[in-house]
Amino acid sequence: MKNYISLSDIENFEQTITEGLQLKNNNTAANLGKGKTLGMLFFNPSLRTRLSTEKAAKLLGMDVMVMNADKDGWALEFEDGAIMNSNKAEHIKEAVAVLSQYCDIIAVRAFPGLEDRKKDEEDLVIKSFKKYATVPVVNLESATGHPLQALTDAMTITELQKTKRPKVVLTWAPHPRALPQSVPNSFVEAMHRMDVDFVIANPPGYDLNPEVRKDTQVFHDQDEALKDADFVYVKNWSSYESYGKILSEGSSWTFSGKKMLLTNDAKVLHCLPVRRNVVIADAVLDSPNSVVIQQAGNRTFAAQVVLKKLLENAGENS
Amino acid sequence: MKNYISLSDIENFEQTITEGLQLKNNNTAANLGKGKTLGMLFFNPSLRTRLSTEKAAKLLGMDVMVMNADKDGWALEFEDGAIMNSNKAEHIKEAVAVLSQYCDIIAVRAFPGLEDRKKDEEDLVIKSFKKYATVPVVNLESATGHPLQALTDAMTITELQKTKRPKVVLTWAPHPRALPQSVPNSFVEAMHRMDVDFVIANPPGYDLNPEVRKDTQVFHDQDEALKDADFVYVKNWSSYESYGKILSEGSSWTFSGKKMLLTNDAKVLHCLPVRRNVVIADAVLDSPNSVVIQQAGNRTFAAQVVLKKLLENAGENS
Amino acid sequence: MKNYISLSDIENFEQTITEGLQLKNNNTAANLGKGKTLGMLFFNPSLRTRLSTEKAAKLLGMDVMVMNADKDGWALEFEDGAIMNSNKAEHIKEAVAVLSQYCDIIAVRAFPGLEDRKKDEEDLVIKSFKKYATVPVVNLESATGHPLQALTDAMTITELQKTKRPKVVLTWAPHPRALPQSVPNSFVEAMHRMDVDFVIANPPGYDLNPEVRKDTQVFHDQDEALKDADFVYVKNWSSYESYGKILSEGSSWTFSGKKMLLTNDAKVLHCLPVRRNVVIADAVLDSPNSVVIQQAGNRTFAAQVVLKKLLENAGENS
Repeated sequence: MKNYISLSDIENFEQTITEGLQLKNNNTAANLGKGKTLGMLFFNPSLRTRLSTEKAAKLLGMDVMVMNADKDGWALEFEDGAIMNSNKAEHIKEAVAVLSQYCDIIAVRAFPGLEDRKKDEEDLVIKSFKKYATVPVVNLESATGHPLQALTDAMTITELQKTKRPKVVLTWAPHPRALPQSVPNSFVEAMHRMDVDFVIANPPGYDLNPEVRKDTQVFHDQDEALKDADFVYVKNWSSYESYGKILSEGSSWTFSGKKMLLTNDAKVLHCLPVRRNVVIADAVLDSPNSVVIQQAGNRTFAAQVVLKKLLENAGENS
Repeated sequence: MKNYISLSDIENFEQTITEGLQLKNNNTAANLGKGKTLGMLFFNPSLRTRLSTEKAAKLLGMDVMVMNADKDGWALEFEDGAIMNSNKAEHIKEAVAVLSQYCDIIAVRAFPGLEDRKKDEEDLVIKSFKKYATVPVVNLESATGHPLQALTDAMTITELQKTKRPKVVLTWAPHPRALPQSVPNSFVEAMHRMDVDFVIANPPGYDLNPEVRKDTQVFHDQDEALKDADFVYVKNWSSYESYGKILSEGSSWTFSGKKMLLTNDAKVLHCLPVRRNVVIADAVLDSPNSVVIQQAGNRTFAAQVVLKKLLENAGENS
Repeated sequence: MKNYISLSDIENFEQTITEGLQLKNNNTAANLGKGKTLGMLFFNPSLRTRLSTEKAAKLLGMDVMVMNADKDGWALEFEDGAIMNSNKAEHIKEAVAVLSQYCDIIAVRAFPGLEDRKKDEEDLVIKSFKKYATVPVVNLESATGHPLQALTDAMTITELQKTKRPKVVLTWAPHPRALPQSVPNSFVEAMHRMDVDFVIANPPGYDLNPEVRKDTQVFHDQDEALKDADFVYVKNWSSYESYGKILSEGSSWTFSGKKMLLTNDAKVLHCLPVRRNVVIADAVLDSPNSVVIQQAGNRTFAAQVVLKKLLENAGENS
């Protein structure tokens, strides 16, 4: 693996999941990253991604340098050919080329603006990093995807599944703010690569990008979708059709104890942070059905297996 | 020791002081924390606490991850049962449970609001961390106490005392801003556990919480209290009775060279940062009687002995 | 070397350049800094300086603690004898003495205000750190100099020079904001210590401090200066005479492909960040003549050789 920009960078998904879970039980690669440096750049806040990726790198023996882009450094220009006489002090070309001098792997987080769909879909920040970096680049959540989260999600389902082909439901839930589609997008991609019975539930107007969901069945009736679910992934996202908009309060979609009863005693996943009693009810989050903490714990090992593959590939080519 | 929330978590105070001072001279535990991670969360600024605790952890071989809570991560909800539809993105339940996945010890700093005494005395942030963490929690200064500072203070007095039972005076001094009572509270607790002749001096209206000071003699006449003092701890705090208020300028309480003459050539302590010529005069701070820098240096070893005890206890139980 | 405040702290410049370039090829000092801590304090933003110095310290086996001064810590008072009853919580005397307790080397960045020349020339922050620190101090760019950059620049020219005595031109270029003279000042000092044919080009009113440039020839005609140049260092600075002012747009001074033709196929240097198509044209930055990325990469090894010499000197004296 040369970069980890999207889930499609993983060649053998099943093997990667297995390897991630093996690292969780036995850190066989504690010295692989010795003398190597991971640089992490945040254009947006982060708790889990920040700490789990830093932890993963250190489990591999790597050094880690963390920067809050813009706050610690300089405002960046992304446009080719720009005459830089305004407030942007540095072009992404130099910033990334320079980071490549100091880091052996660069990881970057940059959320979408949720105003201009076409612009967000260009995923300019992560794409520019990939374009200008001379070292591997890792996506810590971009405008359109969150592949480290999705790998974690797949690892957690694998770890917990009791049947050969479990039913997995991704259900929309309400939220007071307009959120990106990056987490659900990558989760859908992950489910397409697993042997699961996968459906999506969301209110009308909230259908995800058709190029991402492909032929996945979409229910506009949550209760119907939840029937016999073994895993329920609860997550809000803003409208893709009416891009970035909140179309309705949707309070009947809050994932409550009553909704749980429709499932096959399902395990409940969420990427966190979660708005309690808006997205998921206390009764669910505080029950043994909730696996959100175990899921967050797996972030470390998803990041570790990705960094391991990038280091191994770099080692082979050097 | 399972957590370090307050001084009362230390079972054998004298032995802990001795062990801290031994670590200062000979770091016998340089590998105890290898492969372990300390996570430090700051809800308020910090220089000494931040750097000395990070240094202490590294002296034990630990990795350290530092976060400015709220700025780097998400605004946290602390209320049980809250319907989280406003500006708080994450509940403390999840935040702390997740941090416990990535860290072997969690340390947290959160100051009081100084507006609502009852609320501050609940010490919600540190108590919530203790409640929800599955790993040991360290208090880096909470609404009501600063036990790492107090242990440092006790170590510094022990290191410097020339008599078996020195006289120690804690004296209030003026300050332009309303400050917490956390440092004096913990210092009083520390003195109660040492074999010292301990008194407090403060203007009327500034008496500390009676549950903390217990039967310690309180002088409202600073000069009288300072007589024959071997150690003077100078510190401002806002009123406990008229909670969080500054009652008077109190400029006659500035600890000056003239006040020094009343003492038995006392050593002068302060937790820092100190407002020169408001709290303590230049003539005192720049004299050999001031031990504030040595005291700040001891922060490292107080933190080291606390982290050491937490790691040892976790090791025994695993 | 006891401190690295300015280029004059380097005794043998040629030998230091050689040693820096040797470290680049072969890190022979990977354990010299084991158990030692570098503390870095930033009063201003930084990308290259921050990451390259952190990287350099880790290449020596050092631990690194980074702080954004004021943001993470406390506002500092620098004036001797100040009555600290306003917004400054800590005096530089205590801050630096305390940092010296936790760090084996302290590095600090503080830009000039560009309003009061006399005040900026006092270089109060770095000078105060040197005055009050009990450990070595490194300048990460001060009000008047940037000696780590200048050492990098000298290393890069040495690495790339094809003739025994190359012609080096430092040329001013336009910029929308008023910038310090620290980078050009230190570069001039470096060139004075190398065997090069060195000239400066800038518009009238932009002559650098005569005490810095000494008898270096200054051209007010850029084209004339560039003739036969082997190296061109492009950099904006605000006026020294009309202190801190932008006197003119100077758009004819942008370093373009046309300007390149006047040179002897020169290598082009810049300290970065660079405003594309304002300071230097895309055509130059994207050509093989630009060595700005290699130059930025050398920052690591300039920092490494400086830290190495400070550690070695401290070792001899301990």
